[in-house]
Amino acid sequence: MNGRTEWIAVDWGTSNLRVWGIDAAGAVTFANSSDKGMGKLERAAFPAALTEVLAGHVEPGADPYDVLISGMAGARQGWIEAPYIEAPADLDALLASAVRPEMPDPHLTPRILPGVCQRREGAEDVMRGEETQLLGLSALLEGFSGTVVMPGTHSKWVELDGRTVRRFATAMTGELFEVLKTHSVLRHSVGGDPADPERNEGFDAGLDTGLDRPEKLVSDLFRVRSGSLLSGRSQPWGAGYLSGLLIGAEIGGQRELASGGGEIPLIGSAALSALYARGFRRIGVATRVIDATDATLAGLKAARSLSAIQG
Amino acid sequence: MNGRTEWIAVDWGTSNLRVWGIDAAGAVTFANSSDKGMGKLERAAFPAALTEVLAGHVEPGADPYDVLISGMAGARQGWIEAPYIEAPADLDALLASAVRPEMPDPHLTPRILPGVCQRREGAEDVMRGEETQLLGLSALLEGFSGTVVMPGTHSKWVELDGRTVRRFATAMTGELFEVLKTHSVLRHSVGGDPADPERNEGFDAGLDTGLDRPEKLVSDLFRVRSGSLLSGRSQPWGAGYLSGLLIGAEIGGQRELASGGGEIPLIGSAALSALYARGFRRIGVATRVIDATDATLAGLKAARSLSAIQG
Repeated sequence: MNGRTEWIAVDWGTSNLRVWGIDAAGAVTFANSSDKGMGKLERAAFPAALTEVLAGHVEPGADPYDVLISGMAGARQGWIEAPYIEAPADLDALLASAVRPEMPDPHLTPRILPGVCQRREGAEDVMRGEETQLLGLSALLEGFSGTVVMPGTHSKWVELDGRTVRRFATAMTGELFEVLKTHSVLRHSVGGDPADPERNEGFDAGLDTGLDRPEKLVSDLFRVRSGSLLSGRSQPWGAGYLSGLLIGAEIGGQRELASGGGEIPLIGSAALSALYARGFRRIGVATRVIDATDATLAGLKAARSLSAIQG
Repeated sequence: MNGRTEWIAVDWGTSNLRVWGIDAAGAVTFANSSDKGMGKLERAAFPAALTEVLAGHVEPGADPYDVLISGMAGARQGWIEAPYIEAPADLDALLASAVRPEMPDPHLTPRILPGVCQRREGAEDVMRGEETQLLGLSALLEGFSGTVVMPGTHSKWVELDGRTVRRFATAMTGELFEVLKTHSVLRHSVGGDPADPERNEGFDAGLDTGLDRPEKLVSDLFRVRSGSLLSGRSQPWGAGYLSGLLIGAEIGGQRELASGGGEIPLIGSAALSALYARGFRRIGVATRVIDATDATLAGLKAARSLSAIQG
């Protein structure tokens, strides 16, 4: 049985708010979540959303609970801006750069971790939330150095060296898939059950094309449509092809990062990471899937304990 | 002064319906248009839309008017399907492959020209309307052989040899620009007056990036957002960068077609063709802009006269 809740870990993204109680040994004492993501909240609504998601899970004690928050709550449009630290970025510095939002509830002392930015001309980029997962990765795979890929709506490709983010790039792959299947002419040719075997077949065809010639993506996208008009391709095939083509082009466009070293850690959801793993396998690169939530929790714990050691 | 209307040329696209009267010498006797594009019409509404747009322009005579139609009216979801002819396609055959829809109005005899398809495995593609412009180009630039680029919502890259379409590819560039600026996270960073000088500056930056590394498009797209977050780039800059990046990646991904021969004809609107011309100039390729309407009219005339010669 786990001990008394000592502090609270929070992942506050655009769509969701997730909280965990952590005991003195680092074990989880409770977990809860709400749909009050940063994207749905006015600035003034953040404190109540936090109090609400913790209601019934923590008892007011003598001291307020330390609440460590990672993610979009620290964006300019969030609760309070937690300014970016700059790449090359030392992730040991995350907690030292955290900001304290005002909190009316005296039993909670929230701090929001910063994101990481890259100001290099021609490679300007930002992350918020992933830096915590990367710190978590450095704890889960001690001494790791190399390329890390974080599949998602906005995938990140990161060169990590221990606890230093050397450089990174964002690919809009997941969002491209969503807007094209919802709003473009391709929507007529994309749909159906994700478990349909034709989806798999389309995925492999798209993956090969994207890996082989990422520079022709804007042309190859149209094959989703012409495949259905000319070859009677089904909507599941089209969905698979579109997904495979985009993931293939993402990986194919980053070959120099993909095939430089050993096994590449993939931090993301199980389903999406499995699709990326197929792409990497196709070019002879081994991967290792790390659950995104595990990485976030490990990162929040590491941020807090590194600070304890230092301070 | 032009003569009596002998036949009627029609460009029936997804968004608009445009008609021209043509006299025996090939001169235009009248022009009219309506917003009753194929995308807005049920199948049964086509005949009335045609009669309506011609009302007051043609007088019922002893013989019905020959009405030659190019474009999406011949799509499966249009008035009646005009099946594709197959690439390599001889454009002399367009009229012979036209279909006759039923027309209640006895004064009009419409025929719809076919599109062109390409069934080659891995390069499946379709065009509808552009084949008529290509036939027009072959009349306007007699003896032309080489690459033709047709900028638009769905740009076409065509290898044309006299009146033969050897092969072609569609790039979704224009539609990508629209869906990304309207529906993606980039919408926050894209906007403003198209005449703003910062739009030009952003366009050139995006163009260079796209030409230089088309294989990294999914990553470079995110710079629209990070440029506004990190470098205070304006919305006009973002709009220009997005447009330049997509056009640059389209051209950069087709280098082998772009730089094979001499001057490349661009068939499209003046504004969009000028942007593509800037891209081609950047890689040392000369272009020649052909107005899309001129090409359509020349193509409809050529289709009709070739048939007269043959038949």
